[in-house]
Amino acid sequence: MLQQTIAAITPLDEKSMAAARDRQAELTKPAGALGRLETLSIQLAGITGRLDPPLTERAVIVAAGDHGVTAEGVSAYPAAVTPQMVLNFLNGGAAINVLARQAGARVVVLDAGVAADPFLSHPHLISHKIGLGTANFTQGPAMTRDQAVEAVEAGIAAVAREYERGLHLVGTGDMGIGNTTPSSAICAVLTKASVAEVTGRGTGIDEATRRHKIAVIERALAVNQPDPNDALDVLTKVGGFEIGAIAGIILGAAARRIPVLVDGFISTAGALLAAGLAPLSRHYMLAAHRSVEPGHRLMQEHLDLQPIFQLDLRLGEGTGAALAMPVVASAMAILNEMATFSSANVSQKEG
Amino acid sequence: MLQQTIAAITPLDEKSMAAARDRQAELTKPAGALGRLETLSIQLAGITGRLDPPLTERAVIVAAGDHGVTAEGVSAYPAAVTPQMVLNFLNGGAAINVLARQAGARVVVLDAGVAADPFLSHPHLISHKIGLGTANFTQGPAMTRDQAVEAVEAGIAAVAREYERGLHLVGTGDMGIGNTTPSSAICAVLTKASVAEVTGRGTGIDEATRRHKIAVIERALAVNQPDPNDALDVLTKVGGFEIGAIAGIILGAAARRIPVLVDGFISTAGALLAAGLAPLSRHYMLAAHRSVEPGHRLMQEHLDLQPIFQLDLRLGEGTGAALAMPVVASAMAILNEMATFSSANVSQKEG
Repeated sequence: MLQQTIAAITPLDEKSMAAARDRQAELTKPAGALGRLETLSIQLAGITGRLDPPLTERAVIVAAGDHGVTAEGVSAYPAAVTPQMVLNFLNGGAAINVLARQAGARVVVLDAGVAADPFLSHPHLISHKIGLGTANFTQGPAMTRDQAVEAVEAGIAAVAREYERGLHLVGTGDMGIGNTTPSSAICAVLTKASVAEVTGRGTGIDEATRRHKIAVIERALAVNQPDPNDALDVLTKVGGFEIGAIAGIILGAAARRIPVLVDGFISTAGALLAAGLAPLSRHYMLAAHRSVEPGHRLMQEHLDLQPIFQLDLRLGEGTGAALAMPVVASAMAILNEMATFSSANVSQKEG
Repeated sequence: MLQQTIAAITPLDEKSMAAARDRQAELTKPAGALGRLETLSIQLAGITGRLDPPLTERAVIVAAGDHGVTAEGVSAYPAAVTPQMVLNFLNGGAAINVLARQAGARVVVLDAGVAADPFLSHPHLISHKIGLGTANFTQGPAMTRDQAVEAVEAGIAAVAREYERGLHLVGTGDMGIGNTTPSSAICAVLTKASVAEVTGRGTGIDEATRRHKIAVIERALAVNQPDPNDALDVLTKVGGFEIGAIAGIILGAAARRIPVLVDGFISTAGALLAAGLAPLSRHYMLAAHRSVEPGHRLMQEHLDLQPIFQLDLRLGEGTGAALAMPVVASAMAILNEMATFSSANVSQKEG
């Protein structure tokens, strides 16, 4: 399934992009005056192959998983918060629920490996536990290579399921206490930056704990020696089940030509893995925002993604992705609803 | 009317802000993890005096006017475009119409001095022509001091009219060929930056025309000697009717405790004037975005305003303000709809 999905990802549709560019030039505004809204509309045309793609069916898929490395004391919150927050998502009380409602999106939770009993069945829950949390990667790989493939495929399958229900625009989200630690590790390996440079305070650890977190990641990289040219090896050695699933969500969306809003630091670690597995998938990604985690900028630059927002968010869950959905819809509405210079009898630029 | 309005502007409601801050700390997320959404919600509580202000009645008020200084060849577009675009606004075909529809806001046009016959009556048109364009301010003041007061009062009256129709959230917008020139002049006078530093390419002039534009503004400042300690004098000498009206929209909103989204470069020149007339009005302003005009950053820093977006917009019309409205609504929805740690049985931070 993974290889088939990768093979199905093709370049953006140049013809639709050219048509979108031409249309932008005819609309009643100076060329380029809507900046990123214009480039977004051109990218969306290239992704979907049309100038007026429907964008009403929206979902944020929040992948959840636990992390053995929390045993090293890298997080401000106890691991028990992961299942508690999944219940909060399913009950509609979390930040992502509020922001998704505002954006007209449904919230779907993918349990890719929460260290707790399976959750009760729920129409917006996908149960696909790859394990009860990853292994502590300071002592060996976080998971087996088969589990890494399974994590990515869980994300691909989640998109397939949501596609059946109707899906025009998807956002990635994450929940997993401790997951800035594997994300920083993935970032360091794939962007070749130092661990210290890409490691931040996560949900709110102090400076001493941050220094400890850096040492933990450096130890994990020394023990595991992940191969930067093999994204599956990186996921296996220092990843997380939900991070692999996010990579799969992105690949699944790209294979179906669905634009995918990549949320914050953890989601962008998943995006790095997706781009490692299928470089063309990068063109289907939209960076929702730039978080306060220091590695986020490096990852976005590595992927050549410009964030839509910079609102100092550091929550994850897909909150930035939900917040950006109306901007994407607005960019496409501009392309389709504005008058042209000739239809509105507006004079063009002089000279 | 102007003095009464200024007198009615009072500090933000500290009690509501403290209550909003307390509530943010109880919601199921790490403290501060929603960054600017949290500070926005606290500011909105202070503005409106409540934690759950209604935000459904939204308007973008687009102030329009012409500029005698266009005779100096400072714009890429002919002045005839101002009335053409006003008709485009009234017919619903401009960018601001599209983005306001997406944001659930009505577009109201305030004709404060378009150099054309009065427009036909329209439910969303306010006709308040202070003149048929300003005078060419390279040869003397742009307007009389009485006209400057009238321009600001036209903006105040427009908010009063919209308030009667229901108004919870207002955005400022502008239309006026040539109006980056007076805006750069206002910016240079009030931020004390050099003209060269704050003068950009507007709707798309080339570098030679930009240098000419700088020389034109420098000449205007030498001829008029506007007093930086007297905002009305600055408006009189080097302003525009629509820029004065935007200052009035901001003052009128602040006096009624209505949050006001300040759009781009021209709107922020109006905001500088508003802050000069009534320093407390600054707290009622939300900066929608940061445009590519180089002076915009300086003006926002002078006003201590952080933009919500940075999308390389340079269109004006209120487009950035409309785009930011859903973000403001989302910030307040977070405050009101999220579960608390205790209600959702989620564990708090350790230690």
